[in-house]
Amino acid sequence: MDLLRQRSVAEIRADDLRTHAALAIDRCRTIAGMSDEAGRTTRTFLSPAMRTVMAQVQSWMESAGCTVWTDAAGNLRGVYAASEMPAPRLIIGSHLDTVPNAGAFDGILGVMIGLSLIELLAGRRLPYAIELVAFSEEEGVRFGVPFIGSRALVGRIDASFLLKTDANGVSIAKAIGDFGLDVANLPDAAVDPSAVGYLEFHIEQGPVLESRAVSLGIVAAIAGQTRGEVVFAGAANHAGTTPMHLRHDAVVGMAEWIAAVEQLARSVDGMVATVGRVTCTPGAVNVIASEATASLDLRHADDAERHAAIERLLATARTIADARGLRVEWHQHMEQRAVAMDSRLAQMLETAIRQSGVAPFRMTSGAGHDAMIMAERMPAAMVFLQSPGGVSHHPTETVRQQDVADALGAGLEFLALLQDAKDIYA
Amino acid sequence: MDLLRQRSVAEIRADDLRTHAALAIDRCRTIAGMSDEAGRTTRTFLSPAMRTVMAQVQSWMESAGCTVWTDAAGNLRGVYAASEMPAPRLIIGSHLDTVPNAGAFDGILGVMIGLSLIELLAGRRLPYAIELVAFSEEEGVRFGVPFIGSRALVGRIDASFLLKTDANGVSIAKAIGDFGLDVANLPDAAVDPSAVGYLEFHIEQGPVLESRAVSLGIVAAIAGQTRGEVVFAGAANHAGTTPMHLRHDAVVGMAEWIAAVEQLARSVDGMVATVGRVTCTPGAVNVIASEATASLDLRHADDAERHAAIERLLATARTIADARGLRVEWHQHMEQRAVAMDSRLAQMLETAIRQSGVAPFRMTSGAGHDAMIMAERMPAAMVFLQSPGGVSHHPTETVRQQDVADALGAGLEFLALLQDAKDIYA
Repeated sequence: MDLLRQRSVAEIRADDLRTHAALAIDRCRTIAGMSDEAGRTTRTFLSPAMRTVMAQVQSWMESAGCTVWTDAAGNLRGVYAASEMPAPRLIIGSHLDTVPNAGAFDGILGVMIGLSLIELLAGRRLPYAIELVAFSEEEGVRFGVPFIGSRALVGRIDASFLLKTDANGVSIAKAIGDFGLDVANLPDAAVDPSAVGYLEFHIEQGPVLESRAVSLGIVAAIAGQTRGEVVFAGAANHAGTTPMHLRHDAVVGMAEWIAAVEQLARSVDGMVATVGRVTCTPGAVNVIASEATASLDLRHADDAERHAAIERLLATARTIADARGLRVEWHQHMEQRAVAMDSRLAQMLETAIRQSGVAPFRMTSGAGHDAMIMAERMPAAMVFLQSPGGVSHHPTETVRQQDVADALGAGLEFLALLQDAKDIYA
Repeated sequence: MDLLRQRSVAEIRADDLRTHAALAIDRCRTIAGMSDEAGRTTRTFLSPAMRTVMAQVQSWMESAGCTVWTDAAGNLRGVYAASEMPAPRLIIGSHLDTVPNAGAFDGILGVMIGLSLIELLAGRRLPYAIELVAFSEEEGVRFGVPFIGSRALVGRIDASFLLKTDANGVSIAKAIGDFGLDVANLPDAAVDPSAVGYLEFHIEQGPVLESRAVSLGIVAAIAGQTRGEVVFAGAANHAGTTPMHLRHDAVVGMAEWIAAVEQLARSVDGMVATVGRVTCTPGAVNVIASEATASLDLRHADDAERHAAIERLLATARTIADARGLRVEWHQHMEQRAVAMDSRLAQMLETAIRQSGVAPFRMTSGAGHDAMIMAERMPAAMVFLQSPGGVSHHPTETVRQQDVADALGAGLEFLALLQDAKDIYA
């Protein structure tokens, strides 16, 4: 551990970090070619392409000195042993699956950065083990429910969850069996009691880091979410023969409310609120709409702020409806609490990033990640890498080599700092 | 014509008018049972049900003393001769077709009121003939183009129009031939040179008369219309990871514009503007919309006011788009000029209504009617009857017996007044 301890990573490893950054990016692009669909990148839970990817990643993990196995949820897990075993372990992970027609970096980059960190150790052993986890599923594409992989590690896959089916009527349980795994072994997928923390690298999937010209972001919390829809109901009438003052126009009521949603979100620091879907009935050019529905997706790192905002928006909807002679209903479809990342690990990340020569920056993740699930069982930390153009879930999704090098440098500093944090891992 | 001339219709015919009003309503309900669809009222251009209706109406017309024929556009035309022939003629008409799942009064009531007026003459002859026209088509359901019937009377059916096809690929020309009529005879459908004016009774299809507690409305003009759609285009982004200030949200831009549409229409007397259809892309709850489209239907009796409003709304759309980093496009789908009803006939209607004991009320028609087409060739006039609840194009569409009696009374007074207006018909 001399290299880690005696000299600044940023000074002595600049070339090495850039080389490994290029390698990690190259590996991501190689894996993007392993797809369930010709010509575009799509990998879902235990799909045929996933088997190919797992074989490739396993081979790289083993070459880096890991002992690798696949758990019953299809997670690929490689343990890089400590200087003395048994030892506490740090879990580094992210996911292997993608959305349909995905980019090359969402998920897989975090696995490749973990792999590079182990490779950069070049066989040196730490006083704690590193378990590199490549989660089988995070996006929720195949079964409509996300986090199958990390749920297995925290013991949140029960019998009813296993019965969920995909578009072809295949259950999660059957998919596991068909892949050659055994659901009876799912309990063995639970995290080892020796695990003391979880670290995840992930592309930001948003424009914040780019807009601030920083390469890395320390995730302080993963925002809580409320999703639902507001339905305004009025009266369908003839667009030509109904004077303005005798209308009960559901679309105009909805429009007024959408403006209020934006106004509120802009007034609360860190809040995002989105109406991504609007529909109306009957939807004819010359008929005043009798019903209009607006979806709502509202997120904030503070659940109390989020709940207060929802209450205010529903009150606004009622006020609008009353003034227009409309009825209004709210159908909530999702309520997900905010998850704080571990403050001690976040502080260590901040120190590590500063020591590696990069300006630290804290932010909220507006999207859910495996770290959110893992935080149920252990201190969790997360680092975002800049997403050029804020693009993700799209073939043009990319990452800058220097940012990956910065992530590797910060990661090595973090590993060094963790050696000294004996109260955490011992 | 002693009855018409010597005494007030309102005084001497109250019972007779109520009886004929009940009969007209009863006939409308009978005809509503003649439908192309079981259990609901639907009659389209030259459909099987239309043949049944035409036979029934022809029989009533003939019993009332009319000479009846069907022109090549399927219009049923009955002439009630003048005291001496040849003579000028007044055309009274409305349409026999319906929208899908229609009510019992839209169109057909105007034909039945014309029939009742002739029946109320009880064989007495006027110095002008009355031609009662039951138009074959006004709603535009089968071929997507309205006014096939009245177009034939004003000579606006050309070869390309005849080639328009329905959902089964049947052209208007073929539909005419299949019905046993001959397109070669279409020129004979043109209005007789002796026609001096057109009068149409029609349900209002709106709430104005009811809100003012009057039974009849004199149509001063049929509003001009602009229809089209505004498309806002921004950038799709992640609803959780894109801060409010870095968004180019097409849905919020559209919502702001819809509010402006309503505000403008409310500020211009007699204007109606409607966004009846809204759509957005990709339309996912958790994705900021990249594109949002709002239809626009804007009407006013004054074309200059209408054009100025469209210009202002497009300028507003551009202002909104510029402020939000969106692009905006306008696609116009319809531009229809306002059509003034004849001022002399409207004045005669006002006198007739007042003499029949009803308060006259002038209004704009927000919807198109056969009178709009007929006005291309002769002075045209139109009377609206109150639509209870403002309901039309719906099975619950109705009409009050007293209002039909008022229309018959006013109609008889009008026929009497027209006798003296020798400069019009002579």
